Amino acid sequence: MSEYYLGIDLGGTKILTGLGDGEGNILASSRRDTQAEMGEKHVINNIFKTVEDVLKKAGIATGHIKALGIGSPGPLDIKNGIIVENSNLPWKKVHIVEIIENKFNIKTVLENDANAAALAEKWFGAGRDVDDMVYLTISTGIGGGSVIKKELFSGYSNNACEIGHTVIDPNGPLCGCGNHGCLESFASGKSISRMAKEAVKSKQSDLILELADGDMDKIDAAVCAEAARKGDKTAAEIFSTTGFYLGIGLGNVVNIFNPQLIVLGGGVMKASDLFLDKALEVMHQNALDASLSVLEVKKAELGDKIGLMGALAVAMKERLIKNG
Amino acid sequence: MSEYYLGIDLGGTKILTGLGDGEGNILASSRRDTQAEMGEKHVINNIFKTVEDVLKKAGIATGHIKALGIGSPGPLDIKNGIIVENSNLPWKKVHIVEIIENKFNIKTVLENDANAAALAEKWFGAGRDVDDMVYLTISTGIGGGSVIKKELFSGYSNNACEIGHTVIDPNGPLCGCGNHGCLESFASGKSISRMAKEAVKSKQSDLILELADGDMDKIDAAVCAEAARKGDKTAAEIFSTTGFYLGIGLGNVVNIFNPQLIVLGGGVMKASDLFLDKALEVMHQNALDASLSVLEVKKAELGDKIGLMGALAVAMKERLIKNG
Repeated sequence: MSEYYLGIDLGGTKILTGLGDGEGNILASSRRDTQAEMGEKHVINNIFKTVEDVLKKAGIATGHIKALGIGSPGPLDIKNGIIVENSNLPWKKVHIVEIIENKFNIKTVLENDANAAALAEKWFGAGRDVDDMVYLTISTGIGGGSVIKKELFSGYSNNACEIGHTVIDPNGPLCGCGNHGCLESFASGKSISRMAKEAVKSKQSDLILELADGDMDKIDAAVCAEAARKGDKTAAEIFSTTGFYLGIGLGNVVNIFNPQLIVLGGGVMKASDLFLDKALEVMHQNALDASLSVLEVKKAELGDKIGLMGALAVAMKERLIKNG
Repeated sequence: MSEYYLGIDLGGTKILTGLGDGEGNILASSRRDTQAEMGEKHVINNIFKTVEDVLKKAGIATGHIKALGIGSPGPLDIKNGIIVENSNLPWKKVHIVEIIENKFNIKTVLENDANAAALAEKWFGAGRDVDDMVYLTISTGIGGGSVIKKELFSGYSNNACEIGHTVIDPNGPLCGCGNHGCLESFASGKSISRMAKEAVKSKQSDLILELADGDMDKIDAAVCAEAARKGDKTAAEIFSTTGFYLGIGLGNVVNIFNPQLIVLGGGVMKASDLFLDKALEVMHQNALDASLSVLEVKKAELGDKIGLMGALAVAMKERLIKNG
């Protein structure tokens, strides 16, 4: 008989829940707005509804579900199944694993979204053929997850691989974490948006503002990329700067992890034509030859499915290692 | 019957070989100058002599030795047992494992010295009670080794944990590896010596030069420490700067590895009273609370024995994991 798994990709704006088989095929999915503004109970009720919806669509009873995985932004207390905090959700210390297990009687596992995505790319994406890899997501922030000998490297209290919050220049910009000069403050969607806004304010670029319909709040990495592609030199320089610092970060990853593969994902990678060459050039200048000689760098393959596939990979963890 | 192991601490100036029992007690040891200037064959012959000497002292035949470990500076090709290069030794691509195995018919394992030291501190030193730790040696350079779930984390080609060569400020000083702003270029014995020499040249400190007998070449971290302890403000500032950058590096280690323990060793730690408080303060400012809350930082416990104990730990690796 087939084994079934559930995955919940829990985001600040949407909840995406899917049912997968033992091979990682998605058999059914359900999506709802998180409606964070309506409070904790409402969000949890929305989670319940997506699960019920998926089971109904697929015609599968809860008794046939082997495990359920949740991918969520941190900080998390994974051991105790608690979402400690989430800046996009209206809650603190939510015992999400207990809540789900009590409702559906399905073994439930919580994992942070970057680690979940790393697992998904390892088992179903660009990392299929390797045992040692580092996944970096370059989106609003920068998150990371590392797979060592097929297993997630979680650290002693499940907080390892915060590569976005390693300092690469103590005199750098203020980061959301309170430090100065984290990789995230130099090479994320947020930092591209910050640099683009600064360029507009200092009159170095009109096109960026124009493409944002004259609205400073609409300036983001996508707008800046559009400006760069339309020939705006300042916008192009912003991506070149981003590539330089990302390259420093990648070089550090190579020298620390000596991985077989680095997988790069996240929304900002849609503009990778504008910064990736630079990043790889700087990485090659910075990292040690002995590690570079065995390294591959690939783009993530799972695209928009990565959140859900990550949650499913978390649910399937034990099976994947056993079979893979 | 007891199990016996041999360890060879292979350095640029001395070779230290020891015989240990299954509990890591050193039963006999032999030390010789490496005599690197006399060439490869001579060095290898010196290694042979220390092994023969140790066996003779202990009255043990080679047949009773379970394994032999070698701790050596890199770069190494561990899989094939080759010392690729060593700036302090007159050789390139020395098949050291094959050479030793052919001579003594003992199973031989090569490991880089920082990893070997990490293993030694894990099994016999400050890390005795933990499963996840990072060892940093702060000496002329900065080396690192990481133990995850009791096992050495080696990376895909045994070059992981080059923490000394992670960039913490791309505008920083030139490092021996060719990059700018590696941790090693900011917080090692070499960098202390460089800063102390600069201070003397720019007339900011007379005492440093005085304590070096007026000889610029004698200015090193120990001389600078002596000056700082005698009240030289510039020397004290050099150590404070060192502490600042070491703290940045430690914060990055915490955010990446989320270890249970960081062990700090190496010669420069003899002056830890002059920089460690600062380093820990900066680390606490920089690292994420979730990881700091489970972290301990300890000084290495094995002192001058660490090289030999490291080589023995490499030889005993399998036994240690099985029993411990």
